[in-house]
Amino acid sequence: MIGELAEGDPVPSERELALRFEVARETVRQALRDLLVEGRIRRQGRGTVVSRPKMVQPLSLRSYTEGALSLGRVPGRVLVAWEDVPADADTARDLGLTAGTPVMHLERVLLADGERIGLESTFLPLARFAGLRDDYDPTTSLYAAVRASGVEFGAATERIETVLASPREAALLECTTALPLLLLHRRSVDDDGEPIERVRALYRGDRIAFEARLSK
Amino acid sequence: MIGELAEGDPVPSERELALRFEVARETVRQALRDLLVEGRIRRQGRGTVVSRPKMVQPLSLRSYTEGALSLGRVPGRVLVAWEDVPADADTARDLGLTAGTPVMHLERVLLADGERIGLESTFLPLARFAGLRDDYDPTTSLYAAVRASGVEFGAATERIETVLASPREAALLECTTALPLLLLHRRSVDDDGEPIERVRALYRGDRIAFEARLSK
Repeated sequence: MIGELAEGDPVPSERELALRFEVARETVRQALRDLLVEGRIRRQGRGTVVSRPKMVQPLSLRSYTEGALSLGRVPGRVLVAWEDVPADADTARDLGLTAGTPVMHLERVLLADGERIGLESTFLPLARFAGLRDDYDPTTSLYAAVRASGVEFGAATERIETVLASPREAALLECTTALPLLLLHRRSVDDDGEPIERVRALYRGDRIAFEARLSK
Repeated sequence: MIGELAEGDPVPSERELALRFEVARETVRQALRDLLVEGRIRRQGRGTVVSRPKMVQPLSLRSYTEGALSLGRVPGRVLVAWEDVPADADTARDLGLTAGTPVMHLERVLLADGERIGLESTFLPLARFAGLRDDYDPTTSLYAAVRASGVEFGAATERIETVLASPREAALLECTTALPLLLLHRRSVDDDGEPIERVRALYRGDRIAFEARLSK
């Protein structure tokens, strides 16, 4: 039925759906819960409406900004934190540093058409990127600023998992702690294999999917 | 603390942890819930023990069987269904058929070292693979059987999302309906671009992660 409705159309009430499909109210409730988690419908005011389709982002070396633009969405970012922190064991390993070395940490909420869809924590080696402090605007593309500093992205490894949001993450993503999120850990290096960044990015599972093209 | 414990070691009680880290019992409870969803710890009998690390499978054209073996796990499958069904709109599109055309449907629980970690539904064009009915053992690798029939995998597109398990899926995966799962849709074609399969695979988010290597 959803396929026949347009974005923003109201979803009929549980009672109407139970009558129309001749099933129990509990069955309707379960189906609506599934559609909500899948992002096919969303709450709006006191009712429920049909969502626009999920953003499907290719897994690639491109930035979030470029990916969103290519899908016709307007990317945006809200700065949460920008600070120097001591590298923990995982960050130090990924950046080729000793644990405890100060690194630049940039935490931002990612927006698509103004909607909060992701929360990204990026860790950068200070030795290489301290210059960003002078003229980088953290509400713009970090990848563009890295490239402008003369560093080219050569390769990356991305690990994809699923988790539930912590209360802090749920508050920043304006979702509940019961919504499954996609968790991506990325390590990027330049053409010489020198580390550029370690990223921990959380994406709302009801708003985004990722796509990989595999070949021989 | 988890990092200092070995697989199978018991996790101390909430009370002990609250005393040791000087935090509220509620904080400990939240942390344990997070570790459970992440698969770092698991329930065993009435207690909780440290889990083995998640399986990290490369996103590739290889079969589940090959991936599991390369990680030192023993792959296995439990047959749930093997039947001809009419192709729905998505399956027909992916297989280059008209909706309603009968296709072969194979549904299997995927095992790693005997543990249920995934649930895979594969749809195959009957015109090409009806021969599997004669001598294919559905508890063995489907990819090996496809290759043995003279068909080579050329490329695939894989879409990665996260969902919660339906009651049926939770029962088959021996998990709860609150556990986030990774949902992968795959479409594979041969070297000539001819469709081989459409796959809908669900994986337990606490037992498996996927990894992609990205380059220019």
